[in-house]
Amino acid sequence: MNKKLGRQTVKFTNGVNILSYASIAGQKEGEGPLAKYYDKVLEDAEWGEETWEKTESKMQKTAVARAAEKSAVEIKDIEYLFAGDLLNQCISSTFGLRDFGVPFLGVYGACSTMAETLGLASVMIDGGFADMTAAVTSSHFCTAERQYRFPLEYGGQRPPTAQWTVTGSGAAILSKNGDGPYVTHFTAGRIIDAGVSDANNMGAAMAPAAADTLSAHFRDTERIPQDYDLILTGDLGKIGKSIAIDMLCEEGFDMTENYNDCGLMVFDIDKQDMHSGGSGCGCGAITLCGYIMDMFRAKKIKNLLFVGTGALLSPTSTMQGESIPCIAHAVAISADGE
Amino acid sequence: MNKKLGRQTVKFTNGVNILSYASIAGQKEGEGPLAKYYDKVLEDAEWGEETWEKTESKMQKTAVARAAEKSAVEIKDIEYLFAGDLLNQCISSTFGLRDFGVPFLGVYGACSTMAETLGLASVMIDGGFADMTAAVTSSHFCTAERQYRFPLEYGGQRPPTAQWTVTGSGAAILSKNGDGPYVTHFTAGRIIDAGVSDANNMGAAMAPAAADTLSAHFRDTERIPQDYDLILTGDLGKIGKSIAIDMLCEEGFDMTENYNDCGLMVFDIDKQDMHSGGSGCGCGAITLCGYIMDMFRAKKIKNLLFVGTGALLSPTSTMQGESIPCIAHAVAISADGE
Repeated sequence: MNKKLGRQTVKFTNGVNILSYASIAGQKEGEGPLAKYYDKVLEDAEWGEETWEKTESKMQKTAVARAAEKSAVEIKDIEYLFAGDLLNQCISSTFGLRDFGVPFLGVYGACSTMAETLGLASVMIDGGFADMTAAVTSSHFCTAERQYRFPLEYGGQRPPTAQWTVTGSGAAILSKNGDGPYVTHFTAGRIIDAGVSDANNMGAAMAPAAADTLSAHFRDTERIPQDYDLILTGDLGKIGKSIAIDMLCEEGFDMTENYNDCGLMVFDIDKQDMHSGGSGCGCGAITLCGYIMDMFRAKKIKNLLFVGTGALLSPTSTMQGESIPCIAHAVAISADGE
Repeated sequence: MNKKLGRQTVKFTNGVNILSYASIAGQKEGEGPLAKYYDKVLEDAEWGEETWEKTESKMQKTAVARAAEKSAVEIKDIEYLFAGDLLNQCISSTFGLRDFGVPFLGVYGACSTMAETLGLASVMIDGGFADMTAAVTSSHFCTAERQYRFPLEYGGQRPPTAQWTVTGSGAAILSKNGDGPYVTHFTAGRIIDAGVSDANNMGAAMAPAAADTLSAHFRDTERIPQDYDLILTGDLGKIGKSIAIDMLCEEGFDMTENYNDCGLMVFDIDKQDMHSGGSGCGCGAITLCGYIMDMFRAKKIKNLLFVGTGALLSPTSTMQGESIPCIAHAVAISADGE
């Protein structure tokens, strides 16, 4: 049976249920507008750990454990765990999840990771390869800042285009059985490099990749933006969101009505002085695995297109004068499986 | 249809053909015993590029292009490209493959990447999600050494347990159509941390993960080592190989007859002064996508169990006093699809 739609999209026909989900958020995120939807808000950046990297690992571990607990799933019943993060060699995932004893498939999609892990975890279920899988990712302001930019003690000035890496981890458990919401489509993105080389303007770098994947999704599925209650990008921020709207408009798709970006929802960007908005794998992850899934549960959203957006650069590539290749992966989620 | 065998293994029932493959090898690898099986041997470490990272990217790009060319496949017919490497943020893959315009799914499995990408690329075909996919990975001695260990100019002493990161890239194109060889099983590994913390003794760290996945594969499939013409780990080297044999023996599996490690095949380790053997994503990749696949073509091998072995550490985790979590993923390949 061919499950392919068009060039980039697959359609899940056997029912991929989002059985459970959980989100662990940092202190600043806990002061933002979505605070009450998180399962846990940390009181400081360390959470009792010696290093921020260990804190981030603990967040992933806790997000998966909490998601399992919420639906009375035993960790050992998860057949395949898809995970990734922003740190070199994805150590938040590998160290965080090593004690579970669950078959582990590491992915690297930068900040698109929540969508990539959800897509691949859905493939395993819909293809008949597993009955239960999980997807998890995380980011931490302190680990990302010191790895990608400057030591925190340096106190570097942030330009208005800069985004703030979210401290947070989100996990979802997918199952063959359940009563939804369902992951219905996965549109895997292509790498798009628009030539942007300013690592302080990630939204502008990633927007063309988001637009490319969104256009592909609409073409492949013969849908239009208005078919969704909400279209949600992961972390384009203020500037990237506006570019994405313009680029989709040129393709004939009107995104002005029902489109938002997790980077603009996770913080009150003016009050919290967040410049262009939140970013990081955790940004989309805690918004999706908190507020958004709660809205599904409350029947306030019926159809969602979630588009994880990632910048595939490294400090080494930047030092070597390279531009920023980006990618976006999309998953469609619906209450009734259509 | 349930395609799961036991706890960790999936069986592909629809025919996943290895349609084509290619390998690009470094200079030192080109002086090794498998030289004539590589599609291209580089004359120096740079291959005309300004930085070794760019060389490694060019190797991945060329491996995929060469594999496509060998079977008259057009790049645009590849529906999903699974790739990963050892560099921070997997820049060999993202920069190497960005111009192809093919939907891209980045993975991070350290040196287990060739098996992980092959497994997931097979899942897409067998599950009905694609007709053609590709898997590629690479490593480069100079990029790995300076990222993980010391600047090359430092000239650090290497203990006898040390392995030598292979410069090489291997790519395979998988297709629903063809006449084999076929990928028949994928056993995804669990993270195993045996407490080893010596980054100069990776073989010892990874052997327990290899043993765990091999045992799981034999249990899940109800097979024994003797069912395979060859069992091949990716880069355990001399010490790791010997530990793996002992650990499997304790589980009741005799691996003394038909088991080898790519790290011991890719170099003449005594003549080439390679200490414990070759390592890196490229080690398994060029051995599999060169000599081994040529042996399938020549009908000298009929059944292979290929086990990619990865150490999921980072320099940061080592500096923070952590041990080395490891993983191994296995794919079974057979000439007749059984």
